[in-house]
Amino acid sequence: MNSQWIKEQFPILNQEINGHPLVYLDSAATSQKPRAVIDAIKHYYEWDNANVHRGVHTLGSRATDAYEGAREKVAKFIGAKRPEEIVFTRGTTTALNLVASSYGPSVLSEGDEIVITQMEHHSNFIPWQQLALRTGATLKFIPLEQDGTVTVEAAEATITSATKIVAIAYVSNVMGVVHPIKQIADIAHRHGAVIVVDGAQSTPHLKVDVQELGCDFYTLSGHKMCGPTGIGALYGKKALLDSMSPIEFGGEMIDDVGLYESTWKDVPARFEGGTPIIAGAVGLAAAIDFLQEVGMDEIERHERTLAAYAMDRLSQIDGINIYGPNERHVGVVTFNLLDVHPHDVATVLDSFGVAVRAGHHCCQPLMRWLNVSSTARASLYLYNTEQDIDRLASALVQTKEYFA
Amino acid sequence: MNSQWIKEQFPILNQEINGHPLVYLDSAATSQKPRAVIDAIKHYYEWDNANVHRGVHTLGSRATDAYEGAREKVAKFIGAKRPEEIVFTRGTTTALNLVASSYGPSVLSEGDEIVITQMEHHSNFIPWQQLALRTGATLKFIPLEQDGTVTVEAAEATITSATKIVAIAYVSNVMGVVHPIKQIADIAHRHGAVIVVDGAQSTPHLKVDVQELGCDFYTLSGHKMCGPTGIGALYGKKALLDSMSPIEFGGEMIDDVGLYESTWKDVPARFEGGTPIIAGAVGLAAAIDFLQEVGMDEIERHERTLAAYAMDRLSQIDGINIYGPNERHVGVVTFNLLDVHPHDVATVLDSFGVAVRAGHHCCQPLMRWLNVSSTARASLYLYNTEQDIDRLASALVQTKEYFA
Repeated sequence: MNSQWIKEQFPILNQEINGHPLVYLDSAATSQKPRAVIDAIKHYYEWDNANVHRGVHTLGSRATDAYEGAREKVAKFIGAKRPEEIVFTRGTTTALNLVASSYGPSVLSEGDEIVITQMEHHSNFIPWQQLALRTGATLKFIPLEQDGTVTVEAAEATITSATKIVAIAYVSNVMGVVHPIKQIADIAHRHGAVIVVDGAQSTPHLKVDVQELGCDFYTLSGHKMCGPTGIGALYGKKALLDSMSPIEFGGEMIDDVGLYESTWKDVPARFEGGTPIIAGAVGLAAAIDFLQEVGMDEIERHERTLAAYAMDRLSQIDGINIYGPNERHVGVVTFNLLDVHPHDVATVLDSFGVAVRAGHHCCQPLMRWLNVSSTARASLYLYNTEQDIDRLASALVQTKEYFA
Repeated sequence: MNSQWIKEQFPILNQEINGHPLVYLDSAATSQKPRAVIDAIKHYYEWDNANVHRGVHTLGSRATDAYEGAREKVAKFIGAKRPEEIVFTRGTTTALNLVASSYGPSVLSEGDEIVITQMEHHSNFIPWQQLALRTGATLKFIPLEQDGTVTVEAAEATITSATKIVAIAYVSNVMGVVHPIKQIADIAHRHGAVIVVDGAQSTPHLKVDVQELGCDFYTLSGHKMCGPTGIGALYGKKALLDSMSPIEFGGEMIDDVGLYESTWKDVPARFEGGTPIIAGAVGLAAAIDFLQEVGMDEIERHERTLAAYAMDRLSQIDGINIYGPNERHVGVVTFNLLDVHPHDVATVLDSFGVAVRAGHHCCQPLMRWLNVSSTARASLYLYNTEQDIDRLASALVQTKEYFA
């Protein structure tokens, strides 16, 4: 992987913050955008912008082709069988909520079970918690191992014939742990349940194949994978999507609107009422092209190597406490330094031009499980280098001295 | 108004379609974007991109300032008392659905009434229709006059003490008619009902003041007012928003997440779970700056003059049937030509480089009321000129000859 070339593709990385060249280690919150994505959005607005599916004029056709082309690209990127299995949404949050609000109540009764983990991001936690409260279903948690991982055995012991939905992230946004989705999907299917996979943190970093993983639903966010903010996607098996009712009503999702009753279009249009996020889809397609040009296998290899290097460098710092297992990290290292509040750690790191995140990372249940209120998190992506880790490590040492 | 300068601000307008300079007359579907908006998005991604409300690092602060600054700008633009009364959404459709899904069930019981009109866009029609079906409320329609307008008297005769919600567009997207919102709001309030105003078609074209209009809720779409796709806003009076429960759950909308229960942040965060549409909000703010630089009063005057000119020119064409009243148009002229299917009209117009829309314009109930299945629609914006109307008129004459 040509690190120099990659870094050059991201204009934002070539700036100084507080007198130091920027080291951006907050990609799990949102990723930076390569020139190709920014240019694609610009080009769309400068040449092709129109509403889709509506105009018979030339711009309308171009915009529709761009939008539907983006859908095909997403479908191929994650191994969906057909474009209709991709619903564009505002992001993973909206995608997961759509499944919980539309599919959830149609299959759940009192006494049925929803199985999740304590490691889920709030967006894959609260929708199920609230769905359980609403339907009388029981919310169950696959217990985590000591090091925060999920084992197949623990999943086996939790999922039962009363389980209707299993919802779990492919990669944890705090620990960077990769969960054994394929095996958990098998267990879910054996019990007649569906598996909903939160792919916000996996899609940017790993080669994903929803068929191979056995996902019934899979979600992704554009902004975490080099694409624009405000666009994401829900993958759903066609038969499942077909069975679902829309939860948002508006233009272009209808077949016929009478005064007192309406009927809906087929999927995915049924779930995309109103003017879609057209430029967002165009930008997401450009992001996929860019990631594929670099190669997803390359990206994963790069990040695993870099994460191992970071674990190695950081663990040599006295007084650092790194959370999660020593291995199987995909690009996320979460830690605390002595008794310094992580917000203070992040603030001092920022004075050295190093951007990390501090807080509960939208994972309060996991924070409670870790018995901390918050942590600092350095999250990597394809544009990060060993030099960035060295800068983080030396800034951390200086931070320690600052608070000593 | 300096037409030449304005046209130059829109890069997309300086191209040829089918060998003719583009005449874009489909702004009611989506507007074009000035250079300032495209540049603001580009600048955001090249310099400030980060997730908001989360990072303590410099980019995080810049992104948060940009996002919250955009909220303040929207608030001032429509006369909201404070920024917290603005919820960012994907667009008007999501905003209207949020009110229908969250506020609706909290005030409606069987026998209560929801009052709308047959002229509403599907996004301000189906949510109320489905809410009525779900709650047992009665859906009532303010009858339209012969020319498609809504009178205060008709509103008075329809709204009763059983009415809990009145939902109506400020400007019709098919007729371009401006509805007497202030008077209808007074009637609604006298009966203890709230008024929800669909501002998708008014915000781009008129100076809007939600206080003066007496709106309880007001919605807008960025992409129809020179802003990006995928961003819009819901205005709601603080006390009303405060009373509403979230319908989408995720990061940054929570106060505390326990294993089995959660509590929410104050408004507007409560309704903005997940990573927001940050670059969209930045682009929308730039669009507002641009519109204000030109001047909303100027824009309205320009469009009213141009609409009158278009009515005049088009009505001279033999065999054309123009729908709606002769006056009070804001930038929309809807018509049919002889017995030619409007799709064919639009297709031939496109061969002359003229982009209009053909279809039901997401208004099937209105089409039935007009007793047509579809129409052609030419919709104007600040960048259109008399020359554009002349091009439309002469292309229509040639279209007529083509089908004669």
